[in-house]
Amino acid sequence: MAQSDARDRLVAGAADMLRRRGLNATSVRELAKHSGAPLGSTYHYFPGGKSQLAAEAVRLADALTVRKLTAELSAGPVSGLRAFVAMWRKILVDSDFQAGCPVLAVSVEDQPDEDDEPRRAAAEAFGHWTVLLAESLRAHGATEDAAERTATLIVAALEGTVALCRAQRDIRPLDRTAEALESVVRGVIGAAAH
Amino acid sequence: MAQSDARDRLVAGAADMLRRRGLNATSVRELAKHSGAPLGSTYHYFPGGKSQLAAEAVRLADALTVRKLTAELSAGPVSGLRAFVAMWRKILVDSDFQAGCPVLAVSVEDQPDEDDEPRRAAAEAFGHWTVLLAESLRAHGATEDAAERTATLIVAALEGTVALCRAQRDIRPLDRTAEALESVVRGVIGAAAH
Repeated sequence: MAQSDARDRLVAGAADMLRRRGLNATSVRELAKHSGAPLGSTYHYFPGGKSQLAAEAVRLADALTVRKLTAELSAGPVSGLRAFVAMWRKILVDSDFQAGCPVLAVSVEDQPDEDDEPRRAAAEAFGHWTVLLAESLRAHGATEDAAERTATLIVAALEGTVALCRAQRDIRPLDRTAEALESVVRGVIGAAAH
Repeated sequence: MAQSDARDRLVAGAADMLRRRGLNATSVRELAKHSGAPLGSTYHYFPGGKSQLAAEAVRLADALTVRKLTAELSAGPVSGLRAFVAMWRKILVDSDFQAGCPVLAVSVEDQPDEDDEPRRAAAEAFGHWTVLLAESLRAHGATEDAAERTATLIVAALEGTVALCRAQRDIRPLDRTAEALESVVRGVIGAAAH
């Protein structure tokens, strides 16, 4: 396997483990095993250890989400919201409610200050998504305040509803949250726009 | 220390650890130490081990939240929402963003099916809060569908925004989410009601 392939597989494997089990419970050894990579290669590619690997996994999830949101928001905030919802639905359903969001996972486990690169990557990810959504809302007629508040609501509510769905092993919380959010979005951009 | 005191302290200590570190990363030994209880007493009170103790911690957080919501919702859904928001604000600020929600914590780490009592307790907790909020919204004029969808949105968005605040070490996501939710609540119960 090419060098970059091995590194990419480790990062993708780490993202998958974070989605399922969180950060503190996952060892570098398990991450290597989960990715089918030799343990030594993990330390070779990630001299900063688990913290560095987890931060890269968070940045991978961030980048994929940014790409999807950017593409779908070009058709307007409702389309962007629907694509965001569809992304979460697929993760929940495909994993039988075993997988959620790696960005949330590293946000809810405290890390020592000297080793909190994953949390900082998560803060940036939530920031990127919120900015993209807010820009789209503003471009479609929302006021500055309404855009910022609604974008934050969307990110927060979808992250939270994924946890509700996992706890209840039921997709209905996502359906209800999505419906409520779409109504909010239509309200702030004005009934005419889409 | 009286028997019931020792048991209660273990459950409260477990809830605090779950808020901070999550489930998988916390050992029974650490839980006992965190609560200042002898390790033996943990197994005495919780023969089901960590899973049983964590489930009781989730049920404690559930019961405290149900009590607060029930009391505050008697003054209407906006008052209930504000009290719910104030509860999260206090947890975040008092802990310097190190603590969140134990119910969310056990929802985002997969557990083996034979040992998933914490997840089932979390599913019930989210259900209780959603039902209380929905009943209040209906009692104040929301339609059945709007009440259910808005109640789910509130629980999901507050859970998610606590994670955003922890990642960003900033209370503003909670402020924005609270403002957005209050606007949604006022919309579904009609502008005149409070």
